[in-house]
Amino acid sequence: MLKEVVISIVCGAVVLTVGILIGHYGITKSSSSAPSWVDDVVQDVDEGLIEMFLSEVDNIQIQENLKELTKVPHMATTAGDEQTVQLMLKRWQDPKTGLDQAWREEYKVYLSFPDPKNPNKVTVVSATDTVLHTAREREKNYTSDQVDPDVVQPYAAYSPAGHPKGRLVYANQGKPSDYQRLNQTVDLRGTIAITRYGGTGRADKAINAAPYGVLGVLVYTDPLDINDGLMSDANETYPHSWYLPPSGVERGSFNTHYGDLLTPYLAAKEETYRIPAEDITGLPPIPIQPIGFEDAYILICELGGEAAPDDWQGAFNCTYNFGGPGFKDTSVFNNSDVKLDIFNFEEEKNSSNVMGVIRGSVEPDRYVIYGNHRDSWVHGAIDPSSGTSVMLELTRVLGTMVKEGKWRPRRSIIFGSWGAEEFGLIGSAEYTEQYFTKLSERTVAYINVDIAVFANATLRASGMPSVQNVIFEAAKQVNAPGLDSTSVYDNWIKYFNRTSPSHGLIPSVGYLTGAGSDYAAFVHYLGITSMDISYTYDRSKTNARIYPAYHTAYDTFDYSSKFIDPGFVSHQAIARTAGNVLIRLADSLVLPLNCSDYAESLEEYLNTAVTLYQQQLQAQAISMEPLKRAVASFRTAATHLDQTILASDLANETPLKIRRLNDQLMLLDRAFLNPLAFPDKYAFRHVIWASSSAGKPTFPGLADAYAKAESSGLSSDWDKVHYHLSVLSQAIEGAAEMLVDVI
Amino acid sequence: MLKEVVISIVCGAVVLTVGILIGHYGITKSSSSAPSWVDDVVQDVDEGLIEMFLSEVDNIQIQENLKELTKVPHMATTAGDEQTVQLMLKRWQDPKTGLDQAWREEYKVYLSFPDPKNPNKVTVVSATDTVLHTAREREKNYTSDQVDPDVVQPYAAYSPAGHPKGRLVYANQGKPSDYQRLNQTVDLRGTIAITRYGGTGRADKAINAAPYGVLGVLVYTDPLDINDGLMSDANETYPHSWYLPPSGVERGSFNTHYGDLLTPYLAAKEETYRIPAEDITGLPPIPIQPIGFEDAYILICELGGEAAPDDWQGAFNCTYNFGGPGFKDTSVFNNSDVKLDIFNFEEEKNSSNVMGVIRGSVEPDRYVIYGNHRDSWVHGAIDPSSGTSVMLELTRVLGTMVKEGKWRPRRSIIFGSWGAEEFGLIGSAEYTEQYFTKLSERTVAYINVDIAVFANATLRASGMPSVQNVIFEAAKQVNAPGLDSTSVYDNWIKYFNRTSPSHGLIPSVGYLTGAGSDYAAFVHYLGITSMDISYTYDRSKTNARIYPAYHTAYDTFDYSSKFIDPGFVSHQAIARTAGNVLIRLADSLVLPLNCSDYAESLEEYLNTAVTLYQQQLQAQAISMEPLKRAVASFRTAATHLDQTILASDLANETPLKIRRLNDQLMLLDRAFLNPLAFPDKYAFRHVIWASSSAGKPTFPGLADAYAKAESSGLSSDWDKVHYHLSVLSQAIEGAAEMLVDVI
Repeated sequence: MLKEVVISIVCGAVVLTVGILIGHYGITKSSSSAPSWVDDVVQDVDEGLIEMFLSEVDNIQIQENLKELTKVPHMATTAGDEQTVQLMLKRWQDPKTGLDQAWREEYKVYLSFPDPKNPNKVTVVSATDTVLHTAREREKNYTSDQVDPDVVQPYAAYSPAGHPKGRLVYANQGKPSDYQRLNQTVDLRGTIAITRYGGTGRADKAINAAPYGVLGVLVYTDPLDINDGLMSDANETYPHSWYLPPSGVERGSFNTHYGDLLTPYLAAKEETYRIPAEDITGLPPIPIQPIGFEDAYILICELGGEAAPDDWQGAFNCTYNFGGPGFKDTSVFNNSDVKLDIFNFEEEKNSSNVMGVIRGSVEPDRYVIYGNHRDSWVHGAIDPSSGTSVMLELTRVLGTMVKEGKWRPRRSIIFGSWGAEEFGLIGSAEYTEQYFTKLSERTVAYINVDIAVFANATLRASGMPSVQNVIFEAAKQVNAPGLDSTSVYDNWIKYFNRTSPSHGLIPSVGYLTGAGSDYAAFVHYLGITSMDISYTYDRSKTNARIYPAYHTAYDTFDYSSKFIDPGFVSHQAIARTAGNVLIRLADSLVLPLNCSDYAESLEEYLNTAVTLYQQQLQAQAISMEPLKRAVASFRTAATHLDQTILASDLANETPLKIRRLNDQLMLLDRAFLNPLAFPDKYAFRHVIWASSSAGKPTFPGLADAYAKAESSGLSSDWDKVHYHLSVLSQAIEGAAEMLVDVI
Repeated sequence: MLKEVVISIVCGAVVLTVGILIGHYGITKSSSSAPSWVDDVVQDVDEGLIEMFLSEVDNIQIQENLKELTKVPHMATTAGDEQTVQLMLKRWQDPKTGLDQAWREEYKVYLSFPDPKNPNKVTVVSATDTVLHTAREREKNYTSDQVDPDVVQPYAAYSPAGHPKGRLVYANQGKPSDYQRLNQTVDLRGTIAITRYGGTGRADKAINAAPYGVLGVLVYTDPLDINDGLMSDANETYPHSWYLPPSGVERGSFNTHYGDLLTPYLAAKEETYRIPAEDITGLPPIPIQPIGFEDAYILICELGGEAAPDDWQGAFNCTYNFGGPGFKDTSVFNNSDVKLDIFNFEEEKNSSNVMGVIRGSVEPDRYVIYGNHRDSWVHGAIDPSSGTSVMLELTRVLGTMVKEGKWRPRRSIIFGSWGAEEFGLIGSAEYTEQYFTKLSERTVAYINVDIAVFANATLRASGMPSVQNVIFEAAKQVNAPGLDSTSVYDNWIKYFNRTSPSHGLIPSVGYLTGAGSDYAAFVHYLGITSMDISYTYDRSKTNARIYPAYHTAYDTFDYSSKFIDPGFVSHQAIARTAGNVLIRLADSLVLPLNCSDYAESLEEYLNTAVTLYQQQLQAQAISMEPLKRAVASFRTAATHLDQTILASDLANETPLKIRRLNDQLMLLDRAFLNPLAFPDKYAFRHVIWASSSAGKPTFPGLADAYAKAESSGLSSDWDKVHYHLSVLSQAIEGAAEMLVDVI
């Protein structure tokens, strides 16, 4: 009996223990256990999901996207543009592969077009008014693409209409120094200047000319600058290679400022106030027209006058003379003028952005924006449809994961297919004007992939220094196209690299100092951390300014698939790399933005500034100490924030602490904005990355103010240097304040 | 055996069940249970703690604070000012009753002083250069306070030095219309104008005069405007009552723009760039000097010329004539001039803000800022020390609760004791310039309590409409001084009230449309939701422009304790009310900012604008529809956000959802900022609350632009109306965007 009792007690104890264990571990507590969101809010990026994403990105889908996007020319606001609007909407609203929501947003914007009924003409006219030569009005046909009636005649958007006539001169790239040099030899009054693309902005070639009395300007692409000197379409240029055929003409917008020109700082809605067109600044004051090098050759090689300097010479097999002004005595064009008949007209037209979103699960009020323009000059297979075909593949893969319930990002993702970029980044600029505060307060980063693939050699990336690391991380996980065992990163570092004081040899990431694509409004107007990503050239193999079919009727699917990215594997690599960056920005618990890398860039800028300017500034009794202190404050604060993040047990921190750290990183760039820093530059407010004409790798406003003061010697100009130094120091101190402990 | 087996099984099952129950309920889970912070992040404001706070606020402590603060004159940057800096630091750094941290921040600012060695003089000088009358240089002594050698001579800060002499004229309040009227009758060239305070800004009285050739300006306080007509210090004025003695002179800063005048938009640090003093705009171009009505009486009653209009007449027992120019033929001053000898000089001096903080527990990166200036013109018992003595009592009570471990706010609290406010809100403006982005991104609200007690009749509050409700809530919990069974709220509604479309009869809260105190930079430059709170007059009992000792040597502890708030119970009521608001803003789970009340104000502004302007705008082909749509969007969004908050189970929401709703409320006002909206108004960026000269209860920029266009009839001015309508509509749409669902 005792034994049985003992056994019963032991058994009972064992059973009780088992029961306790089951009760404790086997059943989930409901009342006092953690709320369901506790796990969600500390979820970090899922590497498995990134693997899935990378494997789903398909080159053939991208190719098919591109074919569809480039069926017809789709210049902004044309019927072809509307077809692409419909395509984007259809894809993004697809119930199985689309986004949560997609819609269009229209702006009424000020555009400039040639008159299809009165094509622009460039002629050589004799003293007796005989037309001796007429430049081509359309590019030569090689595939059927060039004969599409919707191929817009090559023109300079925003060139005024007019009929200037005069002796021809050659003005190199149309820089201020070029006209200055030319004017020493030739009386420019009443002349027509022919210039080559490059060296300065498009509009500047006419703006710089007008003060000398030049009446009209021609611009062409010299084979030296685009074709590595090759000229013949018999065997050298497209369709035999990627090089520009002789009749190819680069179109473009010839304006200085970005955004709709009639509604500065206001979204161009139907009833928005518009400034009088005559108040627009930064447009060509005289007619300007682009022509092919086929015609430029005929004009330039007949020019009289002295030989132009060596660095003005191009690839033509003749000496580039200044012009007498006008042609050689021995030329058939002797005593003839060049005449421009420009019939461009301006029109306010409705341009659409197409917007699509994936709602964030945990922090829907934090946005990662990914965008590219949709409008092209002609078929735009590379510019912009390489980027658009990549974006459509990204949204297909991500949209499918969302629709299948496999994924929802922590933060919201906004996709923007911008309109009318070619006319001056108009769609993206209007978007940022309309939603200024909302975007400022909530946007984590902007990713721009415009021309996704310039060429198939290597990745190229530009952005704020804080994005360097996440691009590296993403690029390390993607195979370089055609190189199965090499990552995009390892390939990249061979082409572009630098030695970082803190990281050693790394790929070099450029800065977004200009307004070359739709990142401009995000960087310069909103102060949002941004990046621009593409695949590009092997610079040891070509000196082309840009891919040769740029803005011509040859930028077609045929061209891209044969000469830019056969197999679309570079497109695929960009989709994978940019998509990986996008997912990391959207899903990482702590934002993958590195403020210490920002500090490194500021220190480099500072070192350059001290080297270049300190001595002379001291002589002017202007101290650089506040700037030095500001950069040092920034470094200290960045180091401290990095340490705080490292020391945090992130999975167990309160979500509000993580949000706080993320807000410090997210809003850092906002502190660099000053709406008064650049009074002459439209919507340039970011004091670190604004464009600069001084050409020094340092703080842009300081460099420009210094250059001006040094050249004028005026004490009022030195005052402006001092003023800008104060603006800059205060901005950097303000940015450091964003990084130090919040109280 | 079977039975035993059955019993064993039953027993076993029972024991197992007991075990399961013990295991499940008896033992706290460690791993999967809620983290400790889960309860903290959903903590709402603690009403018990507010009760404790209210009971701790002590009127005697406030009285003692005031005594200490007013021992000596403490004009900005003087030794007396430094004493108050030390006092603030000592209190805020007290280990038992102080804050977490306190420190000073210095700015080098541009001030203007009279020369103690060459006091400014106002004299009547005969044709033979005999001095017939000299105005008083110091105010008459009634208590020992007025003989303190540190009482600054009455002067007009920023008046230029100079020695103008000329025939006297009376120019009423020195408004443009006053000089215009006067000029119809009198040739103003070479004259000295005497004006009375009121009707226009101080500097304007000289700025408006100069174009007419006036050489110098006097300004005085008419007994009609300040003393309900009383004049005699034998029995009517202080020390017999609160009324201004005949020799009392209102000092003041005579500048148009706020902030340090040499460093616009830059914090005035040692090495900051300073504009040349001659580039400062908005200063008196000719000397101006304030005098007492004792002297004004002697001058005005002797003036010749025609009688001035009825509404120019003051309380003197004579007819106010225009001036011949100059005095009556029958006057002893016949043929005499008035001469000003002004020796003011400008000086850059270090001015301190004293800052103190209580770190937030859950959201340290959200700031509630509470501030007041510290500097006075003389002893400043009311302006600003009534506010400072209240602030010190607040920080004592809150600091003690923190030090004793009874409380730590959810959000951080920043206290600011601003320097050099009297010279143009300088300390607070420099602070907002230095920390612009950090404050913009993190500040929930700014509470300004400058003059805490103008008089002891009723609460007065101004602010953004969104703060109305939290002020009401706080005021309902505080007893009105001297009225034990009446709340501050119930008393208030008797003095200031309006009928709200949504709330019925409520106290009327004013708007912060000007730059009257340190809220200006927070409202107009940063776009931070702000309020200004004080106790004030029964307007049925006095017409005084302001409390009569304002900016004089009579603004002393004696004056305040005898005539403004005997027993300091109104000070106590303000401390309780403002402190209650402060705690609610710092501790409430959902920010107590009501966006529907904002919508109501916008609707009222819109209705007024439509009534006043629509017909004429239609005639100019300018549509008000975009503005109407914007206000409607705002209302819809506000209603929706309110419903979202109401429908939320706040205690169980994720802290990130609550943060999101709070960010929507916090950042709402930021969307109303446009740095280009008011190009002529320094640091006015908030398009709804900017100052306006049109005097219409509607959108200020629209009202001013409309008034100008209506008066000039120029189409370029109508264009500006259209432009501002677009600015306004876009801002309101942008604000609505902050309130709608975040994606």
